[in-house]
Amino acid sequence: MNINILRNLSYGVYVVSTMCGDKPTGCIANSAMQVTHDTIAVSINHDNFTNKCIKECKKFALSILGVDVNDNIIPVFGFQSGRNVDKFKGLDVKEVDGLDVLSDSTGYIICDVINQMETETHTIFLGKIKDGDILKQQIPMTYAYYHQVKKGTSPKTAPTYIEETKPDDGRIAYRCTICNYIYEGDITKEPDTYLCPICKQPKSKFVRI
Amino acid sequence: MNINILRNLSYGVYVVSTMCGDKPTGCIANSAMQVTHDTIAVSINHDNFTNKCIKECKKFALSILGVDVNDNIIPVFGFQSGRNVDKFKGLDVKEVDGLDVLSDSTGYIICDVINQMETETHTIFLGKIKDGDILKQQIPMTYAYYHQVKKGTSPKTAPTYIEETKPDDGRIAYRCTICNYIYEGDITKEPDTYLCPICKQPKSKFVRI
Repeated sequence: MNINILRNLSYGVYVVSTMCGDKPTGCIANSAMQVTHDTIAVSINHDNFTNKCIKECKKFALSILGVDVNDNIIPVFGFQSGRNVDKFKGLDVKEVDGLDVLSDSTGYIICDVINQMETETHTIFLGKIKDGDILKQQIPMTYAYYHQVKKGTSPKTAPTYIEETKPDDGRIAYRCTICNYIYEGDITKEPDTYLCPICKQPKSKFVRI
Repeated sequence: MNINILRNLSYGVYVVSTMCGDKPTGCIANSAMQVTHDTIAVSINHDNFTNKCIKECKKFALSILGVDVNDNIIPVFGFQSGRNVDKFKGLDVKEVDGLDVLSDSTGYIICDVINQMETETHTIFLGKIKDGDILKQQIPMTYAYYHQVKKGTSPKTAPTYIEETKPDDGRIAYRCTICNYIYEGDITKEPDTYLCPICKQPKSKFVRI
């Protein structure tokens, strides 16, 4: 088995949002797809706060990110937890059917959960599409674009997580323990204000590999 | 609801293959995604012969098409039925774990069906990944590339099917009833040997819109 073939599957990059009581929360997902003309499936890790909240709220929204999305969106929604952080704080949102969607997106789709399938680590939520609209005329971001152009990575809870390997030519490298980003070179020479370019965490989160 | 937002979801283009007894069969799918580190979900319409065959065979393969895939693959796997046609006839295949995968692909993933979820029109098969490898170093084709660059369309059984609309400036146009392709202009002026560029069906399959 060559697990690199999994990188050839194509995905978009989405913020899946829902409500925790009267507060919005959400996370990044790549694993979302239309399964019939009026249903969407999305896969969310059991460890993600959003999973528990979708089960309680029974509805979710997809905000479909574009290639020009603000650089702060993915670090917050992809690498922080809604248990500790109000991820929507300071963001421009549009409220649709009681859910917050990101104005900084190509658009949104609102779904009611009508079925779910459990796996060992993830829940696949099946949502019936209730509403949706285009917000920005922007090219939707694919995961390939995020990985290759933005040099982005996935957290360990993502289906698409593959552990990044260090350069095989013996050069010094460090891995961010939060987002898996590989820093090539000696990170100790960076100033103390250095932040991981993907998840915006400090250099203390890096380990030598 | 603006259904055009559904076009902003990103997908790859895959041949999902399985066995009908001792004969290989398969169809095109866009709706496939990794849902955990070792499972893949794929959505197949109840009307597709491949759906019935996966239920009996209990395994499937994904051949991940690249941007330079031969122009004959999508017309055969996307717009013909395995009930009537041996779709693999004349194609270069690789046999892996009893399944035929296309050599003309960026690679393959082999799955055993471990769960399934029914919707009104489609089955979502959950497959446990058993094997996979890269075959060709080629950029994986996205549905956006297929639609925008190759001018490709979806059959009515696809989750991603959206009826193409005729030009709104009053020009004459025809729609292919097999694949939904829009011919702009007077198709009657084409020679009798004209074939739809997407599904390779004759011009008798077009209707004026």
